[in-house]
Amino acid sequence: MIKLKATFLDFEMGIPIVMMHVEDARDVGVFPGDRVLIRYNSKAEKIAFVETTTQLVKEGQIGIRREAKEKYGVIKGTILFVSPVMKPRSVEFIKKKLDGIELKDSEINEIIHDVATNRLTDIELGAFVSGVYTRGFNDKEVLAVTRAMVYEGDSLKWNKKYVVDKHSIGGVPGNRVTPIVVAIVAAAGLTIPKTSSRAITSPAGTADTMEVFCNVSFSVDEIKQIVNKTNGCLVWGGALDLAPADDKLIRAEYPLSLDPEGQVLASVMSKKKSVGSKYVVIDLPFGDGAKVKSFEDAKRLAIKFKKLGASLEMHIECTLTKGDQPIGNGVGPVLEAIDIMEVLFGRGPIDLFEKSVELAGVILSMTGKGNEKTAKELIDSGAALEKFKQIVVAQGGTADKDLDKLLSKKKISVYAKKTGTVLSVNNKVIADIAKRAGAPKDIGAGVYVYVKRWQTIKKGDKLLDIYSSKEYKIKSVEELLSEFESCVIGSDKDMTVEVV
Amino acid sequence: MIKLKATFLDFEMGIPIVMMHVEDARDVGVFPGDRVLIRYNSKAEKIAFVETTTQLVKEGQIGIRREAKEKYGVIKGTILFVSPVMKPRSVEFIKKKLDGIELKDSEINEIIHDVATNRLTDIELGAFVSGVYTRGFNDKEVLAVTRAMVYEGDSLKWNKKYVVDKHSIGGVPGNRVTPIVVAIVAAAGLTIPKTSSRAITSPAGTADTMEVFCNVSFSVDEIKQIVNKTNGCLVWGGALDLAPADDKLIRAEYPLSLDPEGQVLASVMSKKKSVGSKYVVIDLPFGDGAKVKSFEDAKRLAIKFKKLGASLEMHIECTLTKGDQPIGNGVGPVLEAIDIMEVLFGRGPIDLFEKSVELAGVILSMTGKGNEKTAKELIDSGAALEKFKQIVVAQGGTADKDLDKLLSKKKISVYAKKTGTVLSVNNKVIADIAKRAGAPKDIGAGVYVYVKRWQTIKKGDKLLDIYSSKEYKIKSVEELLSEFESCVIGSDKDMTVEVV
Repeated sequence: MIKLKATFLDFEMGIPIVMMHVEDARDVGVFPGDRVLIRYNSKAEKIAFVETTTQLVKEGQIGIRREAKEKYGVIKGTILFVSPVMKPRSVEFIKKKLDGIELKDSEINEIIHDVATNRLTDIELGAFVSGVYTRGFNDKEVLAVTRAMVYEGDSLKWNKKYVVDKHSIGGVPGNRVTPIVVAIVAAAGLTIPKTSSRAITSPAGTADTMEVFCNVSFSVDEIKQIVNKTNGCLVWGGALDLAPADDKLIRAEYPLSLDPEGQVLASVMSKKKSVGSKYVVIDLPFGDGAKVKSFEDAKRLAIKFKKLGASLEMHIECTLTKGDQPIGNGVGPVLEAIDIMEVLFGRGPIDLFEKSVELAGVILSMTGKGNEKTAKELIDSGAALEKFKQIVVAQGGTADKDLDKLLSKKKISVYAKKTGTVLSVNNKVIADIAKRAGAPKDIGAGVYVYVKRWQTIKKGDKLLDIYSSKEYKIKSVEELLSEFESCVIGSDKDMTVEVV
Repeated sequence: MIKLKATFLDFEMGIPIVMMHVEDARDVGVFPGDRVLIRYNSKAEKIAFVETTTQLVKEGQIGIRREAKEKYGVIKGTILFVSPVMKPRSVEFIKKKLDGIELKDSEINEIIHDVATNRLTDIELGAFVSGVYTRGFNDKEVLAVTRAMVYEGDSLKWNKKYVVDKHSIGGVPGNRVTPIVVAIVAAAGLTIPKTSSRAITSPAGTADTMEVFCNVSFSVDEIKQIVNKTNGCLVWGGALDLAPADDKLIRAEYPLSLDPEGQVLASVMSKKKSVGSKYVVIDLPFGDGAKVKSFEDAKRLAIKFKKLGASLEMHIECTLTKGDQPIGNGVGPVLEAIDIMEVLFGRGPIDLFEKSVELAGVILSMTGKGNEKTAKELIDSGAALEKFKQIVVAQGGTADKDLDKLLSKKKISVYAKKTGTVLSVNNKVIADIAKRAGAPKDIGAGVYVYVKRWQTIKKGDKLLDIYSSKEYKIKSVEELLSEFESCVIGSDKDMTVEVV
């Protein structure tokens, strides 16, 4: 153990790091990357990873992050007690999973606790998600992981009979049904405290799209106020401490695109359980380019969701929906916001409209509040639009915006090179175009898709408009377009689409 | 792409990191942990991971490590071109391994290249070692990994007929045969450019022990000079660029104690191939507490080593040796150095002497230079001692040291609590005691073990002397001793050792 004086260094890493002078590190017997316990008083202790320096902090000092000030009241010069700590036991359990051995509930609890509290290194996290990927979780383990992830975070509690929710498994660009579903079911009097993610690999998450209208980062208390006022909310889940272990595991899965089924189940259900929802519709779009490839896979997953839900005392319905092409016309925050308003005004893209009222209908049926027809009526009457505006206002924004003005200024279009039938619109290529154009950071960037599968078109018809703020991003899109086809056009009678 | 001015920040992490102002990072579209390509000119470009800050560097600056100055001539204010880079393709191949698919040679080459050049994140490295651990490598893959690891680093070339080498698979405390074997075979006229490691999880590596006598960090050119002068060397391999990917993978395997067989084979053989050795004896100590648990496991591994060696045009002999208790008496750098000198003087611990001449004998046989008897004669004649002294002098030190004086000053002893037979001396407990006492950093710290298995002892006989420099470390040893038994004493007739 060594006593060091606190000094603040602001730098951002995914994991908690402290900076020690190389001589102090040697003295206490730790190397860069080793764990130390930093103790201020009996209430304030934290495990962090060591970096060493000869310059950034002096001997006798320890560089810590500024957040220690707000969190624990540590000030510059505060004496901190630093001692090396052993590897947590969860590392052993991770190895057990790699060895293909079923983990006990207590072992899962310990792993999830250490993930949530940043006690594992990236190497250990990489090993854990790899273990789950190669060895899998059985139903019992998935339940334990879900419960542990809920336990490690905050939970919302509601004094309402029907707290409902909705989740879509991803992969389909433009699938921005959430704001519409929330507006409909909140208009029907149900409580829907909806948290959404920002884009990780996609051109926009629901939180990115909602940010076009209003703020999306709120505290738990603020969310309660918004929901108590309007029945619903459309906020970013990332700012909250709901199932924090889940966010950290997603971060570890992301670089290798690992998406083990057990982790997907636990991830979705822990978030839903944490926000306190009891009636949940889970949308499983399937097909080429979606996350779930086939109807059979979607069905199998749906059964697992229902079973896990039952163990968690939640009512789950799953919709298996067409996911083999983009939904709506716009892909990118502003373009999707435009689609949403169009649907709420009763005009919008028919597929986005249909899917939204179908999902809302399932929620209404589950809670005895109606069905798909009721959902349609809530749009037709303007009640859903009104509710959406209310929620946006409650979140400090306005839905009365000239969205077209927010579109990025540079635009190119793509036209059909031949007459025929649209045989496919490629999810991945459309998403990549929107991302290269600058979405989601450049909120006005993205793709407007004019065509749908099986539609008949003529040579020269417009297929896409692409918006971006930067010339070099347009160039990058053009490169992509020269290599990949966004829309395949052929004859629906011919079996051969193309001879290469 | 963005142009930023270089500024130097010295901090040490396992991976190359650059510090960007949060606004610059946003501008170029990267997040903490993302990869960027830093370009100075056509010859100097490097991939690094981004950290962001609002304080440590200003907008328009980029914080880099000082080594860029020596390596590339970058000075403060030099304009660097920074652009985001995509994930390397090797990440895909790592996923393929996780999926249990055999990797092609070209895919393995790409992974090993990216490991050697620090292009992978810790999460990706954790996934790779986990993939190798759960899915394994077949013989073809092991050969490809070995070749790739050699290719990515420096190689030593020798104009000698017999370049020999020796490697021990670890886990047995006090197993310091290497300096003695090197002295014997170099005295016999063979060339042995021996590189060794420092302790990672043990109380001393050969490099730590040799450092008691002399310097162990040398460049490739310096090693050549030493070997040309004395036939041998005993240097630290870590300062060299021999099979650098191996060191990086070992770093990733270490936290989870993953030791996949394929990786062990490739690790050992790539190091041997890189130093240019052709005749190699590989020692496989087996038994309770050793890395290899059983004779059968040792034999299977031996056959794999021989096969891999043949593919690499190397002659391999493997010795399967007793590894179920410490070898020699001393555990810790100085204590092991004392044992070595004792053996070279013809007096030392009999097991260390026997094992050393047996291994040296195998090398002499392989090269037609004699056998175990020759090895013994080279000790008896003083030729091995003379050679050892020569090597130590060539490495800038002296073997004529009063080693006892270097022992740490605080000492406690452990005595037998009853009369009987020593049924076991526990490798792990002995190693843990030496580490808690301060080895290897405190070179004079460690354990002197007085007893061997099956030895008859009386109550009150001395079992261990423990040396340390610090009172609190002695305390920590005493805690360990109150929990674990270093030596189990019983009757060799009774089957029940203890009733708990």
